[in-house]
Amino acid sequence: MENVSYFKGFPDRFSGITVSSSEEYLTITNFEDTLQASLQRWNELKMRAIWFNVDLNHSEWVPILAKNGFTYHRAQSDEVTMVRWLPKDEPNNIPRYAHNMVGVGAFVVNEEGELLVVQERFYKHPHWKLPGGYVEPDEDIQDAAIREVKEETGVDTDFQSVISFRHVHGANFGCSDFYFIVHLRPKSKEITMCKNELSACQWMKIQDYIDSPFVHQTNRFFANAYLEGNKRGVHIKATDIYQDYLKKYQKVYSVHFDSDDKSDSGVNGKL
Amino acid sequence: MENVSYFKGFPDRFSGITVSSSEEYLTITNFEDTLQASLQRWNELKMRAIWFNVDLNHSEWVPILAKNGFTYHRAQSDEVTMVRWLPKDEPNNIPRYAHNMVGVGAFVVNEEGELLVVQERFYKHPHWKLPGGYVEPDEDIQDAAIREVKEETGVDTDFQSVISFRHVHGANFGCSDFYFIVHLRPKSKEITMCKNELSACQWMKIQDYIDSPFVHQTNRFFANAYLEGNKRGVHIKATDIYQDYLKKYQKVYSVHFDSDDKSDSGVNGKL
Repeated sequence: MENVSYFKGFPDRFSGITVSSSEEYLTITNFEDTLQASLQRWNELKMRAIWFNVDLNHSEWVPILAKNGFTYHRAQSDEVTMVRWLPKDEPNNIPRYAHNMVGVGAFVVNEEGELLVVQERFYKHPHWKLPGGYVEPDEDIQDAAIREVKEETGVDTDFQSVISFRHVHGANFGCSDFYFIVHLRPKSKEITMCKNELSACQWMKIQDYIDSPFVHQTNRFFANAYLEGNKRGVHIKATDIYQDYLKKYQKVYSVHFDSDDKSDSGVNGKL
Repeated sequence: MENVSYFKGFPDRFSGITVSSSEEYLTITNFEDTLQASLQRWNELKMRAIWFNVDLNHSEWVPILAKNGFTYHRAQSDEVTMVRWLPKDEPNNIPRYAHNMVGVGAFVVNEEGELLVVQERFYKHPHWKLPGGYVEPDEDIQDAAIREVKEETGVDTDFQSVISFRHVHGANFGCSDFYFIVHLRPKSKEITMCKNELSACQWMKIQDYIDSPFVHQTNRFFANAYLEGNKRGVHIKATDIYQDYLKKYQKVYSVHFDSDDKSDSGVNGKL
């Protein structure tokens, strides 16, 4: 090969290299020659994982990477990431990408002991469910619950506690699915229903909800768990813990005892 | 266009179509002509999301799909999924793919009140952490914890409860990260350390762990939460709930009171 060029890329702390098409696309005249020369050099340098972030607009790189031993690792709307593990004497230890969807259900109870319940527009059978939806990237579960309640019902809320969570497999896109039930306190009462998503929305006495034939067993369980936690004064609360080595707070959820609120126990306070 | 061919695809209940290259690759002579004719027909039929699952070996379809308005949705090692939302009068309501990694830390306590702790081989500073790792596809968190403890330390364990969970953002691959702390009871005591991953592994008195300078604040919090839950007889337990409409069990985690174990409360029993 004459005038051989190589990818620059960025090294990582695991002896890997990441090449981004958005950085190098314009400088490459023959992608496959550059790729093969670079792979040979990376092999000589004993590099391990070779990553390519390929912008949607540069996707003609994708079939050439596939032909040269790369596989897919993950994708966002406008970018796919492909990877090749170079070492022949060491098993591939690259973590798999995320494969659990995370959703929230909001358990909003007003001062009259009424629960905010909804019926989905596209659901075939009558069925009272909790407002909710998927968490967005970088969103805390309580913020997702507050946002979904506002979008679907117009009600403003505050976070109180996590009541329960469910983990099931074989859900959307072949993923597993976490569903966190978040207890919220309403700051407003008037309902402004989102007509795109819902066919009904109302306040319902919790006991009526538990007794309704149009409530799934899991939601009935959540309602009973809510009543039980309230009766005992025991809730799953969030604590912000400062991590010295990261210089930032981490959000941790654990069992909290109402009776400790007057004392200074340390376990449940902000550490 | 002469001799126009169309993709078959599979319809879904949301007025969408999924085309899989593994089904149709061999029957298509001109991919772009077939794609454009099919898009025109799907528009006339008022279809909504058009999905293409493209096998790694058929990845020359990818740049052509990108040129025709498709974006990435998700990828597995040997397949990328691209999607185009056709309706012009309705916002794209396709859920984003998973963006939360899920890991477990195992809190293994023996009958002498000692905790199973490890040091990672690649960690720069001395640091006693809990054995653990990422959950595998379709794996329950307790099974992931049991598997990781066995792989890293050789110790066999049983699931007891969930002590706590942490949710942080900006973790691996730009994902957020859930980390569940799972209390396990050891069924064996002898340690066989995995030398690929660990530099040290031992049983340590829980109070010594809490007092150690080589323990991060979050792990110290988990240890205190474990002691507190034990003292009060309150734990986050798993319940299998049968869903009539799905004809299967769902795993739900919620606060459980040891004092109820003798009674028949319904909330914490298998429903």
